[in-house]
This record gives sequence, structure tokens and C-alpha cells, in this order.
Amino acid sequence: MESAARSGVLELAHAKVDTPVFMPVGTQATIKSLTPVEVWGLDYRIILGNTYHLHLRPGEDRIAAAGGLHKFQGWDGALLTDSGGFQVFSLSGLRRIGEDGVEFQSHIDGSRHLFTPESVMEIQRKIGADIVMAFDECPPYPSNHGYAQDSMVRTHRWAERCRAAYVSADRKSAEGWDQALFGIVQGATHRDLREESARYLSGLDLPGYAIGGLAVGEPAETRNDTVDWCTTLLPEEKPRYLMGVGTPVDILDAVERGVDMFDCVLPTRNARNAQVFTASGVLNLRNARFADDFGPIDADCGCSVCSRHSRAYIRHLFQSKEILGPRLTTYHNLFFYSALMGGIRHAIEQNLFLQFRKSFVARYNNRQDAESETLQGRLP
Amino acid sequence: MESAARSGVLELAHAKVDTPVFMPVGTQATIKSLTPVEVWGLDYRIILGNTYHLHLRPGEDRIAAAGGLHKFQGWDGALLTDSGGFQVFSLSGLRRIGEDGVEFQSHIDGSRHLFTPESVMEIQRKIGADIVMAFDECPPYPSNHGYAQDSMVRTHRWAERCRAAYVSADRKSAEGWDQALFGIVQGATHRDLREESARYLSGLDLPGYAIGGLAVGEPAETRNDTVDWCTTLLPEEKPRYLMGVGTPVDILDAVERGVDMFDCVLPTRNARNAQVFTASGVLNLRNARFADDFGPIDADCGCSVCSRHSRAYIRHLFQSKEILGPRLTTYHNLFFYSALMGGIRHAIEQNLFLQFRKSFVARYNNRQDAESETLQGRLP
Repeated sequence: MESAARSGVLELAHAKVDTPVFMPVGTQATIKSLTPVEVWGLDYRIILGNTYHLHLRPGEDRIAAAGGLHKFQGWDGALLTDSGGFQVFSLSGLRRIGEDGVEFQSHIDGSRHLFTPESVMEIQRKIGADIVMAFDECPPYPSNHGYAQDSMVRTHRWAERCRAAYVSADRKSAEGWDQALFGIVQGATHRDLREESARYLSGLDLPGYAIGGLAVGEPAETRNDTVDWCTTLLPEEKPRYLMGVGTPVDILDAVERGVDMFDCVLPTRNARNAQVFTASGVLNLRNARFADDFGPIDADCGCSVCSRHSRAYIRHLFQSKEILGPRLTTYHNLFFYSALMGGIRHAIEQNLFLQFRKSFVARYNNRQDAESETLQGRLP
Repeated sequence: MESAARSGVLELAHAKVDTPVFMPVGTQATIKSLTPVEVWGLDYRIILGNTYHLHLRPGEDRIAAAGGLHKFQGWDGALLTDSGGFQVFSLSGLRRIGEDGVEFQSHIDGSRHLFTPESVMEIQRKIGADIVMAFDECPPYPSNHGYAQDSMVRTHRWAERCRAAYVSADRKSAEGWDQALFGIVQGATHRDLREESARYLSGLDLPGYAIGGLAVGEPAETRNDTVDWCTTLLPEEKPRYLMGVGTPVDILDAVERGVDMFDCVLPTRNARNAQVFTASGVLNLRNARFADDFGPIDADCGCSVCSRHSRAYIRHLFQSKEILGPRLTTYHNLFFYSALMGGIRHAIEQNLFLQFRKSFVARYNNRQDAESETLQGRLP
């Protein structure tokens, strides 16, 4: 078996980022419970913000007044903002999709908003992320061929309009630094559509490409096939970003197929539910069997949580609804993901990716006392 | 005007503590939202745990199995546990006070419990704090002379029984280190009772003394008078601890009257309500006027929050119900209290306490845009 795994460097306005990279999700201008200094200390150099949430609160004008999102949230690294499309479809109230864009109601106060390709580019220009995403529609799983095709064609037209707005803004943020616009390949799980979409978007010659419409409930095999269809056709020299993925094994699957970038709420959201990642599987620290377990989350982990705090203590914090509980598990899980990506990059550079993958998976899947992990990682 | 302000050092099993000292409250084995490493980095060397809460969850036996509360929560400094008396009277359900002790129902699950002087000493022996408190009754404000006297006499009998249990346990924790038992002066706001109580407890020759029954709604002048009556009679060479106090000005008032130790939920609880302390008064960051204020909480503050984050950002975190909001304000407020106590100690050593007090209060009370602060600092 040959691997398409590859390593590289993204040169962005605020950071150089080694790939393959995992980007933690900072929806509302914060990686929940952690400071930017801690996230940086965990070796992350790029994190996400969500355009939908930031537009509703605090609003792109306020962020621009602060000097952009980096400065607003005190983050020294790079940022990526999504297009808001996924949240409009999964989170907002009544919506109407038209050729021009999407009308929707805020999940916070019911107020009415319109996202168009142009307005989404303008919002992202003001927010000022290093990487901005074209406005897209993310169809549900499963989607039949007819619906998926209509949706894809609309997403392509929107991508053209996003590109035009981006070019006319001189490819720069309101604050003056370069932004990289990524197009999003759609087409649901239909091979002909995915191939058409990858070819079409490649023709727009954008700085990078994302694979959207996955991590929405499809089986791993379907996702892996879909990724394969896309990465085979996307330009070799541009970064490839698989949106909303995923578990450690999902990430290994996609790296093997030539994906460079990932984001997922799994390590952070699951942390807030007391679920922690270890080299030998996932544990839920709310489980009563940890009440008197005075060992660390993971005896092999080198993070500051594992060096000081026990499973029993962290369980007590969750039982007592103490803020420190999710804070400690979030830190540990992001340490785990950071170490995983570092291990992946090192293995690729040593030409040992498949061996790394094999030994990681063997141990990860073999734990006697591990729990089944939450597989759905995309943030609604 | 002469000042009774004094500085000193408490030599405890786990730390030497410079006084006057403020002790942050870690009710459920955590200073809410902060790690023990951060609390240590803020120069705190002693923090509180609440016997009532820790007895109910996780239970003193589990704490003892972990090797004591220090180890359970990963705290390298010293600890003080209260007697549980205050919480039994303010927080629990149905209760019956008898000569033997107090029957009460858990606020968590309604289960029935009995606290006696002996059981409270045994719980605190297992928890293993450096300083443990005698079981007392804290009468409400106002309390008439008759009730206050009955209650005080019972508290004295309980103090004798606590002392007997303490001596028979060889004054040591279950883990083997020395514990210091403090008696609690009661008597409400009646001078003759306070003087009787201070004399009575002094006769027990305990390692330290607390002034209880204050910070329960009485006017500042009444509190200051009551503190005066007690500190005048308590032995010069023993530490004096004013329970549940208070605001910066309350602390200055009491230091001036010879108090050495303080605890209060004010800086941490108010932080969780977006209220922050500055040299020129208290601000509530939820206020809309901070929405576009990109300056720090306090331009003169040297803490890591003020060096990186703005009022507008922290307000956004609170508006968005983000955990990082209370975390940042808690850190800032504990930095403020730590700096205040450091300033007080330094001033006392330079024989400049009254001058320090005067300039602090002048600035603190003069802020144009400061809010009125919450005066009630004791944790129910």
C-alpha cells in the first residue's frame, strides 16, 4: 500500500504553519476555557473562528475596530474563518436559500440576516483571518444526486462571486494584511460530482482548497473514498483542508490520502463532557470507576495536567460542576492532538507514516477499558 | 491616631505565610476556574477549603485515600478548613441544633448528616489542612443578647470538646503532619459577650483565634467596633483571623485593628459576575459602556490579563457565556488582592500603614465611573 501523506509549510500573514496540521475551533473568539497563551504553548499556530457566530456577536465592525480578530482575542498566531454556510444550515432558525444567498434568523435573538457570497467575504475581510473560506452550501447526508448537483452548481457560482469580491479587495483584510481564499469542494458522496467540483474549483486558481460536506454522519469508508476522489484531482501545490474531521483515526485516514489541514470540535467539545483522549483510547472521567483512581489521565502523557492531577480529582470537578474540570480536560485533549500531529509530521519526514499509523491505531483501538468515542465532530 | 497593624509569619506544616494575609476560598477543592499553579504564581501560600462541602463531596475518606486535600487538589501550599458551622446554618435544609451538635440535610441530595464537635474534628483530621477550625454556631445579624449569649456559651462548650479531640489525635492530621486548631470568638455585636468570648477562648491556649459571626450584614462601624473589642483581648502572640472579610477597605479597617488573616469569596465570586477590582474602584464589565473599550481592565495593573486582554473582549466573553470570561476576571481580582496584601505588609514594615491606607482609599473611592461593590462577602 502506498501512502499519499505529505508534509509542508503554510506561509500565512501571522504564522508559518507546519502541515499536516490540526486547527482547534475557537468559535466565539476563544478556544473554550483556555487562554491564547496556553494554546500557543500547546504548539498551535493556527486556530479557527466561526464567521456566523462572530457576525452575530460581537459583530465584524467591533472586531475591525479592535484591529481585527487576532488583536481582539489576543492571539499571536494565524486564524482561519469559515464561511458561515455550515452554521446557517445547521444552527439558525427559518432560512430561505436563493440564488443570491441565504436568509436566516439568529439563534441568539431571532433577528433576520442575509448571507451572500459578497457579504460573507466582506465580513471575513473585516474579521481579518489569514485564511478565509468561500460561501458554500453543505448538503446533508445522504443527499440524492439531483439535490447534490443543484447545490454544488450553486456553490460553484457562489465561489466565483467570492473570488471576484476577494480580488476586488486586493486579496487583503481590512487591516491590510494578505488573506488566502480557499474554495470548498462539494458534491455529497457522488463521485462524478466530487470530481466535477474538484476540477471546477481548481480552475479558479485559488490559494487553497477545502473538502466540505463530510463529517456529517457518513460511514468512514464513504468519507475515505470521497476524500480520495478529491485529493487525486486537486492541484498538488495547494493546501488541502478536510473540514470538520475528526477522530485521531479519521485524521490518519485523511493524511494517508494527501490531506494537509483539519479542524474539529471533538477534542474541545468532548473535553467539556469529561471525555479524554489517551494513547490507548478514550475515557469518560464521569464514570464512577474513576472515583478512587488517583493516577493521571494517561500515564504516558507529558502534559501539565497529567503531571499534577488525578482522574479522581478531575471526576470530582465534573461532579461538582467546577469550571476547572473542562479546563483541565480541554488542555489535555489539545495536548494529545498536538502531539498526534507532531508525530504524524515527524513520521512523514522520516518516510515512516504507514508504520506510525499502524502502531498508533493498534494501541489506540486495543484498550480494555476505553469507551466508545463520539464520532460526530462538526460544530453545529 | 495610632494603628494596631502588625506583620508576621505563620509557620505551617506546608508553608510559611507572611501576614497580614488574604486566603482565597477553594470551597470544593478548587479556586474556581484557576489551577493551583496559577494560584501559587499569584503569591498565595494558603487557601481555604470548606469542610461542609468537602464532607458531602467527595467525602473526607476519599480525600484521605488520596493522601489529604493538598495532594487531592494538587496544591503545594498550606490549607485552612472551616468548621462547617457557617454552611450548616446558611446553606443546608432542615436542621436541629442540640447540645451534642447539629443535624442537617445536604443541599445536594437531601441526605441527613450530624455534625458534632468530635465529628467535625475527625473530618478535618482526614482532610488534613494545616489550620483547622473549632465547630461553632454563627448567629444571624442582628441577634438579641439572650440568643447571642446562649449560642456563645454553646460554642464555648463545643470549643472545649474540639480541643479535647484535637489533643487526643496528637494535634496531627491523618497523614501525620501538624495541624493548628483555631478557636472562634462569637457573641454577635454585644461588647460584654465578645469580651467574655475572647477571654474564655484565650484561656484554652489554642494556636490561633478567629473572629466569627461578622460579615453577615452588619454596618462597617459595628464590625470595626466588634473587631476592636476582640483584638484588644486576644493574646498578642497568636494569629487573629477575621472570617469572611472582605472588601479592600474592610481589610484595611481590620488590619488597622490588629487582624492578621482574612478570607472572602468577594474577589472570586464577583469575578464570575464580571465585577473587577481596580486601584480606582470596582467595574462591572457587563456594562454596555465597555463594549468598545479596547483598553485593559486597569491600565496600572501588571497582571497577565491586563497585559493581553481588553475590557471589550472580556465583556464579549461574558455576553457569550464563555468560560474564559470568569477565568480572566478571577485571575485579575486575585492578582489585585495579592498586590493589596503585599502593599499592606510592605507599608507595615516601613511603619507607613496609615499613610498607605489613606492614599489607597482616596484613590479607590474617587473613581468617577466605578460601580458600587457587593459588600456581602461570606459564602453561604
